[in-house]
Amino acid sequence: MFGWMEDLYYTYRASFLSPVLTPGQSLWFVSKGIDYEFEIILNGELLHRQEGMFTPVEVDLTSSLAHENILEVRIAPVPKRVPYPIDRSQASHVVKPAVSYGWDWHPRLIPLGIWDETGIEIRNSTFIDTLDLRYELSEHFKWADIVLQVQLVANNPVKYVWWLKDPSGNQVFEKRGDCRSCTIVECSIDNPRLWWTHDHGMPELYESVFEILDEKGYVLDRRTTRVGFRRIRLVPNDGAWNEPKDFPKGPSVSPIQLELNGRPIFAKGTNWVNPEIFPGTITEQRYQELLEIARMANFNLLRIWGGGIVNKESFYDLCDRMGLLVWQEFPLACNNYPDDAHYLSILEQEAVSIIKRLRNHACLAIWCGGNELFNSWSGMTDQSLALRLLNALCYRYDRQTPFLPTSPVYGMGHGNYVFKWEGKEVLETMIESRNTAYTEFGIPGLPSRSVLERALPVEELFPPRDNSAWQSHHAYHAWDVMPDTWLCASLLEEYFGKARSLDELIEQSQLLQSVGYKAIFEEARRQKPYCSMALNWCFNDVWPAAGNNSLVAYPKEPKPALGAVSASCRPVCASARVRKFVWTAGEIFEAELWLLNDRFTEAPGVLIKSYLIWGADSQFLLEWHTPNLVSNRNEAGPTLRFILPSDMIGCFSLRLEVVGHPEYDSEYTLLCRGNKAMAKKDTAIMNV
Amino acid sequence: MFGWMEDLYYTYRASFLSPVLTPGQSLWFVSKGIDYEFEIILNGELLHRQEGMFTPVEVDLTSSLAHENILEVRIAPVPKRVPYPIDRSQASHVVKPAVSYGWDWHPRLIPLGIWDETGIEIRNSTFIDTLDLRYELSEHFKWADIVLQVQLVANNPVKYVWWLKDPSGNQVFEKRGDCRSCTIVECSIDNPRLWWTHDHGMPELYESVFEILDEKGYVLDRRTTRVGFRRIRLVPNDGAWNEPKDFPKGPSVSPIQLELNGRPIFAKGTNWVNPEIFPGTITEQRYQELLEIARMANFNLLRIWGGGIVNKESFYDLCDRMGLLVWQEFPLACNNYPDDAHYLSILEQEAVSIIKRLRNHACLAIWCGGNELFNSWSGMTDQSLALRLLNALCYRYDRQTPFLPTSPVYGMGHGNYVFKWEGKEVLETMIESRNTAYTEFGIPGLPSRSVLERALPVEELFPPRDNSAWQSHHAYHAWDVMPDTWLCASLLEEYFGKARSLDELIEQSQLLQSVGYKAIFEEARRQKPYCSMALNWCFNDVWPAAGNNSLVAYPKEPKPALGAVSASCRPVCASARVRKFVWTAGEIFEAELWLLNDRFTEAPGVLIKSYLIWGADSQFLLEWHTPNLVSNRNEAGPTLRFILPSDMIGCFSLRLEVVGHPEYDSEYTLLCRGNKAMAKKDTAIMNV
Repeated sequence: MFGWMEDLYYTYRASFLSPVLTPGQSLWFVSKGIDYEFEIILNGELLHRQEGMFTPVEVDLTSSLAHENILEVRIAPVPKRVPYPIDRSQASHVVKPAVSYGWDWHPRLIPLGIWDETGIEIRNSTFIDTLDLRYELSEHFKWADIVLQVQLVANNPVKYVWWLKDPSGNQVFEKRGDCRSCTIVECSIDNPRLWWTHDHGMPELYESVFEILDEKGYVLDRRTTRVGFRRIRLVPNDGAWNEPKDFPKGPSVSPIQLELNGRPIFAKGTNWVNPEIFPGTITEQRYQELLEIARMANFNLLRIWGGGIVNKESFYDLCDRMGLLVWQEFPLACNNYPDDAHYLSILEQEAVSIIKRLRNHACLAIWCGGNELFNSWSGMTDQSLALRLLNALCYRYDRQTPFLPTSPVYGMGHGNYVFKWEGKEVLETMIESRNTAYTEFGIPGLPSRSVLERALPVEELFPPRDNSAWQSHHAYHAWDVMPDTWLCASLLEEYFGKARSLDELIEQSQLLQSVGYKAIFEEARRQKPYCSMALNWCFNDVWPAAGNNSLVAYPKEPKPALGAVSASCRPVCASARVRKFVWTAGEIFEAELWLLNDRFTEAPGVLIKSYLIWGADSQFLLEWHTPNLVSNRNEAGPTLRFILPSDMIGCFSLRLEVVGHPEYDSEYTLLCRGNKAMAKKDTAIMNV
Repeated sequence: MFGWMEDLYYTYRASFLSPVLTPGQSLWFVSKGIDYEFEIILNGELLHRQEGMFTPVEVDLTSSLAHENILEVRIAPVPKRVPYPIDRSQASHVVKPAVSYGWDWHPRLIPLGIWDETGIEIRNSTFIDTLDLRYELSEHFKWADIVLQVQLVANNPVKYVWWLKDPSGNQVFEKRGDCRSCTIVECSIDNPRLWWTHDHGMPELYESVFEILDEKGYVLDRRTTRVGFRRIRLVPNDGAWNEPKDFPKGPSVSPIQLELNGRPIFAKGTNWVNPEIFPGTITEQRYQELLEIARMANFNLLRIWGGGIVNKESFYDLCDRMGLLVWQEFPLACNNYPDDAHYLSILEQEAVSIIKRLRNHACLAIWCGGNELFNSWSGMTDQSLALRLLNALCYRYDRQTPFLPTSPVYGMGHGNYVFKWEGKEVLETMIESRNTAYTEFGIPGLPSRSVLERALPVEELFPPRDNSAWQSHHAYHAWDVMPDTWLCASLLEEYFGKARSLDELIEQSQLLQSVGYKAIFEEARRQKPYCSMALNWCFNDVWPAAGNNSLVAYPKEPKPALGAVSASCRPVCASARVRKFVWTAGEIFEAELWLLNDRFTEAPGVLIKSYLIWGADSQFLLEWHTPNLVSNRNEAGPTLRFILPSDMIGCFSLRLEVVGHPEYDSEYTLLCRGNKAMAKKDTAIMNV
């Protein structure tokens, strides 16, 4: 539909009168990002040419200025690798997000042009060109050694003042001195207040202010930066060294246990995708409203998926402040990016820009080469030069931050993306899985009626069907291995019968999404400590989708599953390991009781009472006095067994009540199919 | 015994009269290697201090010369990490081979001091400092673009002449010109003759000669180098992309299929270890006699194990000429090398020296971080900074050569190292294994009587026992998980009864080694194309061992297993998949017939006749007309089944005769235990 727009040149054109510049002043065109290949032309003169949207543009216009000026930014057409089909593989030779070339949840709509802050600025003869604040924490966090490196543009040495304020606003350090073109200043802070994720402490941020001054003390330029002191490592998962056991013996799995300030934390989170089709329209406000939802969901890690953009600066500032960790991928996804010299040179330029921009953020936890590159549909390997280059650059510019070539690596798993696969429900699949990290898994769910009404013509709303707006909004044929993804109408009908209205369909879909996500997150947590991470696919929608794995519909409307996930990700909660969703009346129902605990504190044990709820009935099943809570350790409890009433039919639930701690309560919705063969109406409880 | 020697300083001291230097000449102390931390002192003046044995030393003595001079090389004591036990872990912070700190086949004897060519040389004012010849092959090998980069020490520009001779000695290129301190010259060769391993073609080497000349045409300096044009890649193993199948889905295994000039070759070879305890004593002659044995064994790849040294230059020259590929590890093995800044700086210095020295060798196939670093006994991971650094340096200086962080990586296996493990024979274990590469596996075998007589006092020779010279020579308690490694006397007794003499013991041990190695090499080959590599542990001995997995006893005496391995590694041969070594009389004997083929040519099928040989009897079993031989493809044939005679006892063999091609014949020695319960004497053949 919009394909014809991909192959055009676009020109931004602005005219302006030259400002009056005092001696030494210069006029600059500056941009934080222009997508993708472009030229900067002033009065017909080509001043700059660039390929790459993540490297900031700074062009000195001064010597080419006239009184009346025409400034042009000329954008080349969408880059497309040939000969490739009209899909993401066309982006396999460029450092441009592949998602916009078309994905199972993203329409093909390929942005071009200015996408981040851009303008013209007057610069004095003396200014701060770059400022880089790095620190090293002592082994036991007793002090932080800080090194500030400043690059100036200046004809003569100037004075500087640098001070640091602690998170309460108290100044803890000040230094003054003379400053040359390149200046390195050091200081040491005793007992620094550490930066923590919101669920493990406070995201403490110090403020650094660096000013340069002229002889009279007049401030020529200033840079304010925030610094959070923390140490992040990827360490081997608990138990990983015990494997493999047999000869011929392979290596142990790759480490994916996040260690924050010495604590092996369980990472709960999600995959963040572009919140807008056109990144140029993303505002700080937009980031903030979504990140607040993520924090409310008890997430502590966001994987910034390699199919999308590297976010704007405000995103990382917000994560720093909100105590959310960021797993940042480079823009490579599901393609075989080549070993060729031109691609590697652009990748190097872009990666260096990205690393230098983000490396000082407290939130930055992991660098990653990109998405699913070591799988058949991509075809890259650890021999691929692009990934060796990215590893080398991250080592060179930010070696303290862990680097992964891709996700998944050995030990980790991606998927599945539906509730039932080859006859097996996700509840069972997860229990049988053994992974160090589940860094993508999805259960589709419909958004609310109001979102659907925005996406679909009213006459197509119900019943949903193929070859309609439902399909173009990814309810059908989105994932090629299952024709009714992401709606999954056939499964809904199998479980609940044919929906009689749109509202009923929405309710069915949302219920299944909640059940599935709850099962996955909690099972991943139960597999701690071997498992250390659970990130669902995906957090948000890029547009009003008519079906997707997302937890938050466009633009910022949580689906009910978000509430379920939020409950499953509470630092401490009761949990039940239930093997399946669909039960049969008269069958022995089984559930293993757990107390999940991600806190690093000790606490007395609790009393968990379990009930079966069916309609208005509430049947007490079992109570469990848990042991005392040990720092960062789950407790497995008894398995309850109960013969489901022979006349049971429809949804029922298992409720876990934690006496005196309603904030730990949990509830599991399940489905019972009637059993006509059963006559007996006995119920029984068998505790183990 | 020699422990006291580890903690001393050693000083080499030489006195010499200053030579007469013409104006512009200088006198240099040069060394290709001094182990490990040392100072160069002239007439009491410290001129140079270095940590690291692989970085060449070049010290200009000129300005400190007197008429009579005393030159000292002062060696610091053995570096030992503290507090660590007296074992290899003491070497976990240095770039020094860990093996000499003690290993299951290497006594603790830690060399120090000058270990490679060292001397004093007079240099003219103009000389060639470094010369680096790099090339790029076109996709289809139609041409090679060569770039020669030369660094001169020269006051003024000089003339140069550069020519290239093809492998037949014909000059194919000549260029003359002027030359400055840094000069880059390029040329292009059409249809270059490619370098191949000896089993796939000829190791064709061009010769490059670069001379600098003064105005009168007098040659000031000359460098001659050999170039072999070839492309080496690691590509995904056949079938690797089909896995894993299930969700949650992990990555595919790491690629370990060697591709030489576009051909996915099966790598057959061995692990090379230091051939002498003191590397200073290793000569080119020593390398040559061992490498000739390796080539005779049909090996095409040598893994230079990271526990040992990086070999002297002559080793790689020989491999270039003999068509043997080299997998080169950095000196890291079975330790957790730290992330600390000092270690990393020495590692960087040493690695850069190693890479620059070896990267132009045609034989260089793979860089590897070191041995078994991703296993529990080492504790490193892909997050370890040392390995990220090595990857980055190899990328920077030699990105065309594949890099592995360690062996094994995901998909590959090491071990086992004995014939029988937890009740299962290696024949069965291997058939049940599924690895992309077997890069270490060993079966111990005794050396000949004459080697043992050199190692052991005559009164201890027989019977072997613990706590004797047998033990100090690694026949007992060498590998901590099995007390009688590497002799494995209990297994020999179980199979063959108590040996009555040393010769009988040797015969038993050597037979089992031959059988085990034959089974492993051939089974690995049968698993082609998913499996692409088989390297036994290890090739050679470092001293007269009284038991080891080696194929060649010290100093250069092949064990009988070498002959068996050599037969198993023939490019084309008949092969039998036999599930076990020990059979019982009256049991149904089974063997699956194969024709192994690593050649890239087609050939007519052959007729294979199989026989059971027992004493003087030869029983025809089955014949198989194989299909035509397809390039680089094995053929699986029928399974023969045969009831072993009920009176059978002792060794018997399965012989495969290839009619008209005796060079493809194979024979398998097996053992039959008598079955007293069996009375019947029938024999039968059941063919499938």
